[in-house]
Amino acid sequence: MDIYERSLALHREKQGKLEVSSRTRVDSMEDLSLAYTPGVARPCEVIGRDVSAAWDLTLKGRTVAVVSDGSAILGLGDLGPEAALPVMEGKAVLFKEFAGVDAFPIVLDQREPAQIIETVRAIAPTFGGINLEDISAPRCFEIEDALQDIGIPVLHDDQHGTAIVLLAAVMNSLRVQGRSLSQLKVVISGAGAAGRAIARLLSCTDGHDRCIPVGQLRICDSRGILSPERERQDPIKEELARLTNPEGERGTLRDALRGADIFIGVSAGGVLEGKDIATMAADPIVLAMANPIPEVDPEAAKANGAAIVGTGRSDLPNQVNNVLAFPGLFRGALEARAVRFTSGMKFAAMEAIAGCVVDPSPHRILPPPFDRSVAVRVAHAVAAAALHDGVVREGAIAGVRG
Amino acid sequence: MDIYERSLALHREKQGKLEVSSRTRVDSMEDLSLAYTPGVARPCEVIGRDVSAAWDLTLKGRTVAVVSDGSAILGLGDLGPEAALPVMEGKAVLFKEFAGVDAFPIVLDQREPAQIIETVRAIAPTFGGINLEDISAPRCFEIEDALQDIGIPVLHDDQHGTAIVLLAAVMNSLRVQGRSLSQLKVVISGAGAAGRAIARLLSCTDGHDRCIPVGQLRICDSRGILSPERERQDPIKEELARLTNPEGERGTLRDALRGADIFIGVSAGGVLEGKDIATMAADPIVLAMANPIPEVDPEAAKANGAAIVGTGRSDLPNQVNNVLAFPGLFRGALEARAVRFTSGMKFAAMEAIAGCVVDPSPHRILPPPFDRSVAVRVAHAVAAAALHDGVVREGAIAGVRG
Repeated sequence: MDIYERSLALHREKQGKLEVSSRTRVDSMEDLSLAYTPGVARPCEVIGRDVSAAWDLTLKGRTVAVVSDGSAILGLGDLGPEAALPVMEGKAVLFKEFAGVDAFPIVLDQREPAQIIETVRAIAPTFGGINLEDISAPRCFEIEDALQDIGIPVLHDDQHGTAIVLLAAVMNSLRVQGRSLSQLKVVISGAGAAGRAIARLLSCTDGHDRCIPVGQLRICDSRGILSPERERQDPIKEELARLTNPEGERGTLRDALRGADIFIGVSAGGVLEGKDIATMAADPIVLAMANPIPEVDPEAAKANGAAIVGTGRSDLPNQVNNVLAFPGLFRGALEARAVRFTSGMKFAAMEAIAGCVVDPSPHRILPPPFDRSVAVRVAHAVAAAALHDGVVREGAIAGVRG
Repeated sequence: MDIYERSLALHREKQGKLEVSSRTRVDSMEDLSLAYTPGVARPCEVIGRDVSAAWDLTLKGRTVAVVSDGSAILGLGDLGPEAALPVMEGKAVLFKEFAGVDAFPIVLDQREPAQIIETVRAIAPTFGGINLEDISAPRCFEIEDALQDIGIPVLHDDQHGTAIVLLAAVMNSLRVQGRSLSQLKVVISGAGAAGRAIARLLSCTDGHDRCIPVGQLRICDSRGILSPERERQDPIKEELARLTNPEGERGTLRDALRGADIFIGVSAGGVLEGKDIATMAADPIVLAMANPIPEVDPEAAKANGAAIVGTGRSDLPNQVNNVLAFPGLFRGALEARAVRFTSGMKFAAMEAIAGCVVDPSPHRILPPPFDRSVAVRVAHAVAAAALHDGVVREGAIAGVRG
């Protein structure tokens, strides 16, 4: 059986991958009156007087919802909410395994952003954070933006998780080469969820103190370089075009790539050939995330001068894997009882991931996905950044400082 | 420390009572590609083609949501959604402990029935059933009614769980006395969630083949006997009045009680005195559920001729405890993959609970709450009734028959 058939067999055998278990025994009337009535009335009253007590007395303070509408499942597209459950359960398994965070999947039979926003807002009292997942662009932007003020951190991992790990890979590549982003030209292929988040982080749009903007940035979709003129019809892409290409340069992805130092692919397999890499500046960095077929063949990229190559694939060197980011990101936000994620927290996660590689080399720009120390270091950095950015809920600060 | 302080300490020590755990290890790249990408794509595709596969391949088929808006928490009233979490977590613990059902609390920051209905409908793809809890009347009726067609069973336990266990207690009391409901007069004190459900079951309103209506039924609220004239302003109570008192009898609870054979209290402590029981017919049955103080003092009731007395208290004989019903009810519905609960399924649960007491006596009309065989027998009876009533989803029937 191939990996897909074995995965299907695993899901059938276990009837899913998550279960809800009890942290307390109920073997006697005494147990029952402590965990349930009448004793439970007291924690209820305490929370009724002060909602912040819910972080101490219930699962809320350690639990994240993994929310999807099933509109953009992996590379599969729109298969509906139930079909998203195996991915969301898998995500929840990784939250638990890598960061000890309790996560529960919530898949929604809704498509209107306004409806999804209201549902997530409505269920928020149960959770300490919300991980949005596999929601199609541009709806994912509107939904995430509208949920920033609900009092718990909300993050669309397909945007920020991917961007954070990719930029950690870029940072360590530059450490290897002794170069600085501020002097370099970066080209992004893909103007979807991840592409937008990468562009915004690279250009310091969300602004935070330690951000250094990239020298030059171009972002391309299947029709070529995004330019303000061309994107009049699409407010999201127009914003990206003004951000990256105020000069209004027109052209194809290949045009943009000429003389570029860094290529970041978050688009589709095979949009480039090896010889296109030869048109880039000296010692280019190529990060081609498309799965299972990268934007450019890694071997061909190297043959054409790429100094450092990374992909999304686990069977090749320098795998860029989200699991390096999201468990620690939410663990840190929960420990800080953050009311939202800030770009400072994302930047801190990126630095922490990069810092986990003591001595980066062209074949090792990221820590391996199973390095369990990564989530711990990311969590600590994210909690400290939350404190620095003043988004920490009262009652958690001591815990974070300590 | 009293039970309340010990419960608070337990909740603080454990930070709640539930956790989400993984049913599969993730220790290697192989594990990761089976539980998550790329392997997980296959179960997603299979569910995308046939939603019913979600019951086999995900947690959906064994998981219930325990949903509340925190508007009627225990006896405490409206403390808000976060304050309801300790109760909902406790309920989920009991689902797991007594029936092996995975249950997860969802508390809602919404109050409009239309909003709550839409939110529950939206999150339904994640779950195999919905337990509504601690939602104030009359909103709970509108919400539960509107959710009967969402394709998974939805039950408001404060109504039906309580009614089922109370009527099991009535059935066994009549077995002890060799009497039949059809010849008797029943008086209910309390026209809220439980009172309405009891009245509807006793009068076979939801109609199913084996139901025998009670001889005479009166339901009282704090103002006395419900009568159609009096309840013009309240459609729910007017319906109850027409159902139980078409004659339009007026009067107080005490008036109604005269000559009655059975008193069922789901109202407030101390609404009756011992001597009121003396006005009932010979060998009356008194079930006084108000907590912690029953509608009538059990000892005083016995001193005034009550043949059988039950309460909601664990420190007295004949405790009427919901835990005898809801775990098996949902376990049976999940095993049958029922699309809804029918009155036949509720009636079957009631008979199964009563049947767990082989030789009922005045001091033993119900099985003890910790008799683990009850949930199993209830589940089997409920699944069989679902099959009989034709509300079983394709693919489950063989499992139920087997």
